[in-house]
Amino acid sequence: MSETILNWGIAACGLISQDFCTALRATKMPNHALKACAARSLERAEKFAQKFEIPSFYGSYDELFADKNVNIVYIGTTNNTHKEVCLKAINAGKHVLCEKPMSLNKQDQEEVFKAAKEKGIFFMEALWTRFFSIVKKFKEQITNGSIGDIRFIISNFMVPIKSVERLNMRELGGGGLLDIGIYPIQMICYLMDHEKPLKISCSGHLMPSGCDESASITLLYKNNRMAVINMSTTCVQNARTSVMGDKGMIEIPDFSWCPVEFIKADRTTHKEPLPGCPPTNFTNSVGLSYEAEACREAISQGWKEHPVVAHDNSRLVNEIILESMKQLGCSF
Amino acid sequence: MSETILNWGIAACGLISQDFCTALRATKMPNHALKACAARSLERAEKFAQKFEIPSFYGSYDELFADKNVNIVYIGTTNNTHKEVCLKAINAGKHVLCEKPMSLNKQDQEEVFKAAKEKGIFFMEALWTRFFSIVKKFKEQITNGSIGDIRFIISNFMVPIKSVERLNMRELGGGGLLDIGIYPIQMICYLMDHEKPLKISCSGHLMPSGCDESASITLLYKNNRMAVINMSTTCVQNARTSVMGDKGMIEIPDFSWCPVEFIKADRTTHKEPLPGCPPTNFTNSVGLSYEAEACREAISQGWKEHPVVAHDNSRLVNEIILESMKQLGCSF
Repeated sequence: MSETILNWGIAACGLISQDFCTALRATKMPNHALKACAARSLERAEKFAQKFEIPSFYGSYDELFADKNVNIVYIGTTNNTHKEVCLKAINAGKHVLCEKPMSLNKQDQEEVFKAAKEKGIFFMEALWTRFFSIVKKFKEQITNGSIGDIRFIISNFMVPIKSVERLNMRELGGGGLLDIGIYPIQMICYLMDHEKPLKISCSGHLMPSGCDESASITLLYKNNRMAVINMSTTCVQNARTSVMGDKGMIEIPDFSWCPVEFIKADRTTHKEPLPGCPPTNFTNSVGLSYEAEACREAISQGWKEHPVVAHDNSRLVNEIILESMKQLGCSF
Repeated sequence: MSETILNWGIAACGLISQDFCTALRATKMPNHALKACAARSLERAEKFAQKFEIPSFYGSYDELFADKNVNIVYIGTTNNTHKEVCLKAINAGKHVLCEKPMSLNKQDQEEVFKAAKEKGIFFMEALWTRFFSIVKKFKEQITNGSIGDIRFIISNFMVPIKSVERLNMRELGGGGLLDIGIYPIQMICYLMDHEKPLKISCSGHLMPSGCDESASITLLYKNNRMAVINMSTTCVQNARTSVMGDKGMIEIPDFSWCPVEFIKADRTTHKEPLPGCPPTNFTNSVGLSYEAEACREAISQGWKEHPVVAHDNSRLVNEIILESMKQLGCSF
């Protein structure tokens, strides 16, 4: 790959932004530099900059986006602000990697894509799972015929995070589907080559706040194939993905959103341990560096979208989430 | 238990009846005797009688039910005939163990229950899974608090049996839910103490015949608990049951309809191998003897229903199947 250098600006200094910087520093990728960070509080940005040895820090996103040393922005703000912050970054001519979910509705999503297209910048939703090489190999197990034809996929993300305040707040874009359910949804879209489902059905429970607490989504595909997503914010962890074909089954036994192993049709296990990394807030966050490198790949090639998380891919994932939330009665 | 002797009459000489007789003979239970069998063809009944050393055989069920040496009938006819054959057996004053599903609609089910009640005989739907001691112990793992409170259950039965002719024939009561889907449905009802779900949602695919080929059913329960049943007649085998609580997960890794092991919350495995048995048509059929002994337990106690598969239990299982089939568009 060419010597394209990504000079990162970090918008918001929360837990996920910390992990993104930890990952970039831990993997010591020479063509990625942390140039600036911003938070709504200057003090917070300063602390963050000190921790990650970032030369510039700002108390507003506008200042970050005006920084000429920055050519790509990582957006780790709360879900409800993604659209606004994305548009500001795009209008300042910065490439953008935006945390999932990139928007809370279709209109906002289209507005962001349109702005990115008009400005000619690279934009990607941070569906980081897809850039794990083990995930690519997992999918190859399907395309190489080891399980025959796909008939049924079940992908779960259940983890006891209901007490996280943000998740309970509709005004911040809370709820389980946008936070964790998006992972099994995107996994199924990825494994099904982003084929549009014929039918989306969802049933589940809401929190007292009206945010979604748990859900099961059934997707029907042509040729009598189907997939089920199970999400819960109140269970112990189960993040298994099982792909059943007419000749075999393959599975990611857990951690499907950031996997380190899968079980092949012959029941042997393929493992890919992650590189060493200082402690992170979330599981296996060192893998966030893979999506950073994917951004560099795209930008060095002059791509405005990465084919692994193309805009249409984000559109389909968003459509499934929004339809499911509508059926649950918790649309924004 | 008292010396109550069950003298079995076997109605229909198909694959499941063969397995029932194999199981009874293999487990050598002294208080169970095979007294007579019947098929629509006398020749078939004679062959069956020879194979299992059954003293009497008949070319009609009426003759079987008139046999005074028989005090309980095992009904292994095709699904579409269960009601009619049950009623004949009941009216002849025989106790009845009827293969699942006991009926194809609510009216037939109530008619059978009413007849059994009026005649004062013992009647049970053959949900044999529940009489495996390992299934009882699996449930005890929940009630003993090892996983905290139940939050989410997933129970699957996927097996590539679509080519079985009977399954494709609506006139015989075909389709996957009545044949295999009933197992995870009854499992969830059992684990949830037969609590009535607040909502039943089902989505899936039909065969060209109009019988159900695959389905996912979501059951919502009060206190934000839920359960999902996944059924497919076109996949390689996955018959896992996973119970997620707020403190842990327990699982039957496969063969949930006739299990030999489960994984406890501490991830250790509890195993209960089945007794040795000559080859059977279906998996682990030696376990059919457990339900036979449960019938003897009930009859020796003077019970008209067995509490582990009470009539109300069958009603709830049937209600979930019928509502799911209605939503799939394949009701009878």
